[in-house]
Amino acid sequence: MTSSRLNKVRLQLEKNKIQALLLIHPANISYITGFKTEDSFLFVNDKRCFLITDFRYLAEYDKKLKNRNIQLLEIEKDIFQMLKTISAHQRITQLHFEQDYTSFAFYQKLKEVFKKISPAKEIIEELRLIKEPKEVLLIKKAVSLIKLTFKTVIKKLKKDISEFELANELEYFIKQHQGFGLAFEPIVAFGENSSFPHAQKTKRRLKYNEPVLLDIGAEFEGYKSDLTRTYFFGKMSSHFKVIYEIVKEAKQRAILAIKPGIAISEIDKVARNFIKSKGLKQYFKHSLGHGIGLEVHEQPRINSQNSTLIKPGMVFTIEPAVYLPKQFGIRLEDVIYVSRKGAEIL
Amino acid sequence: MTSSRLNKVRLQLEKNKIQALLLIHPANISYITGFKTEDSFLFVNDKRCFLITDFRYLAEYDKKLKNRNIQLLEIEKDIFQMLKTISAHQRITQLHFEQDYTSFAFYQKLKEVFKKISPAKEIIEELRLIKEPKEVLLIKKAVSLIKLTFKTVIKKLKKDISEFELANELEYFIKQHQGFGLAFEPIVAFGENSSFPHAQKTKRRLKYNEPVLLDIGAEFEGYKSDLTRTYFFGKMSSHFKVIYEIVKEAKQRAILAIKPGIAISEIDKVARNFIKSKGLKQYFKHSLGHGIGLEVHEQPRINSQNSTLIKPGMVFTIEPAVYLPKQFGIRLEDVIYVSRKGAEIL
Repeated sequence: MTSSRLNKVRLQLEKNKIQALLLIHPANISYITGFKTEDSFLFVNDKRCFLITDFRYLAEYDKKLKNRNIQLLEIEKDIFQMLKTISAHQRITQLHFEQDYTSFAFYQKLKEVFKKISPAKEIIEELRLIKEPKEVLLIKKAVSLIKLTFKTVIKKLKKDISEFELANELEYFIKQHQGFGLAFEPIVAFGENSSFPHAQKTKRRLKYNEPVLLDIGAEFEGYKSDLTRTYFFGKMSSHFKVIYEIVKEAKQRAILAIKPGIAISEIDKVARNFIKSKGLKQYFKHSLGHGIGLEVHEQPRINSQNSTLIKPGMVFTIEPAVYLPKQFGIRLEDVIYVSRKGAEIL
Repeated sequence: MTSSRLNKVRLQLEKNKIQALLLIHPANISYITGFKTEDSFLFVNDKRCFLITDFRYLAEYDKKLKNRNIQLLEIEKDIFQMLKTISAHQRITQLHFEQDYTSFAFYQKLKEVFKKISPAKEIIEELRLIKEPKEVLLIKKAVSLIKLTFKTVIKKLKKDISEFELANELEYFIKQHQGFGLAFEPIVAFGENSSFPHAQKTKRRLKYNEPVLLDIGAEFEGYKSDLTRTYFFGKMSSHFKVIYEIVKEAKQRAILAIKPGIAISEIDKVARNFIKSKGLKQYFKHSLGHGIGLEVHEQPRINSQNSTLIKPGMVFTIEPAVYLPKQFGIRLEDVIYVSRKGAEIL
């Protein structure tokens, strides 16, 4: 598995005329090695692939590394001198680095050591854009657990439970499934707090007749899920019901519009125009969704600027919303897999 | 409170001859604003301070922002053009950015817009190095909860509990205390897994007569704690006991050596030399500790290279360890506050 990934990476290097690539972004390194790493580097060219890490991780990574075409190296005192030595051995005249993840300070130090370094733009991300069946399966597992969590959590809704407490209950439930973790800090927002698109949890307690917004995600073997539901605790007001139906229909319309060959911006337009037609345009300002996989937010970004065409194998969220300041917010989010026929809700 | 911080920051700018500083590192922004932010920018010069964020956070940050000398701005389409406009208004001829947190790609875009940009090195970190009494209090609260967690967790140790399960129990316990969260993904390692310095949790179940290493930290109002204990479940082997006493004494000796005016490298030497004197030097390769506060790992780094002198107000961990490959690891970690008299274990 990771052996064929390494081949894909090398084809990418060839296509982009890259002699050697230095990776530091954990999700990109994870894509190639098959497991999570911290504080590590991956050097890859047409012949060799080195996972460079320090003493703290060495024995553990050695145990996990299945692909023996990847060689594990311990960081010596100076990573820059070490990279120089490797490059000299491999006769590398130009080293590429990840422009979005390499800090200016790191770049400066690389420049001191190498004659020629160049920024690389989303080389591995381009591969990650189209998921392999095995990746879809892992995302599906992470999605399924969240669906089960929603089902279980509804039963825990009770008067006076706080946002912190409800979050703790659902996190505990997720982690009872060994191997699963949180994909991100869950959003649990009651009442008017749901009108903050990225609400941070508070001690606020649940009252009768108010909304409960839950945005949660699980992680399984590095792959993430991200789903949002907005419930109503008590007797739903007609105002809430009207808005809820609008957001729900916006989501459905967007999902129905998804098929290979359509521009991503068109999908965004479908949902946004529907919300606009209801006079609510100003209450839905964020993008419609985002790719998901080894990261919670990755390519493709589902927004009005992205002219990329939908392709089979893409996995992303669709999350239209309406936020009414000081009243409530409603967001509904599903994870979509694009097959040859169209969208499949995971 | 955050008002006096802003004054401190401006003195730093003056001292470092910085006309205007652009911050993107969340911990640095948090230090100035008094609360956690995401995807935000902070622009500060001698007259103005702008917290720049997008629609998703605007209302929530507006509610949290206590210091009205900080002005909240919504990101317009292009953050770079926006920064240019602000700088023009403020007559800024040179903008400094954080060299360790600004990506190469961001730097390139800044350069397109500004005539003169320059990297800045740990301007805010230097302030954060010496904790205010209020900060120490918050760290203390985060430490106290972990001590309580250890006490509670010992009771949960039982045959066949897995690393995942034990971690879930202790995380649940921490989060039952509203307002507290995890400072980092806890390390829970049984038996030979404890020999991996940064062990990732597994399904491995606890057996009789083996060690249990717990490295956990809480967060309270942004401030972190980080403590490690190594227990033994069952009848302690004499081998384990001997090593345990060595690590314990190494920690005690290091803590006793801490006082204002001593070089940090000397503290590292005290612990390392003691472990070396027992013939175990090769089994303790990581640094002795790290500063802690708004980040789990911050300045001062407690290692053999750091010649910085210990100063009152510093807060850092001391965590000597011995890792015997394929057998077990023992790490003991406390959080230390430096007063005028010496070390105080929090």
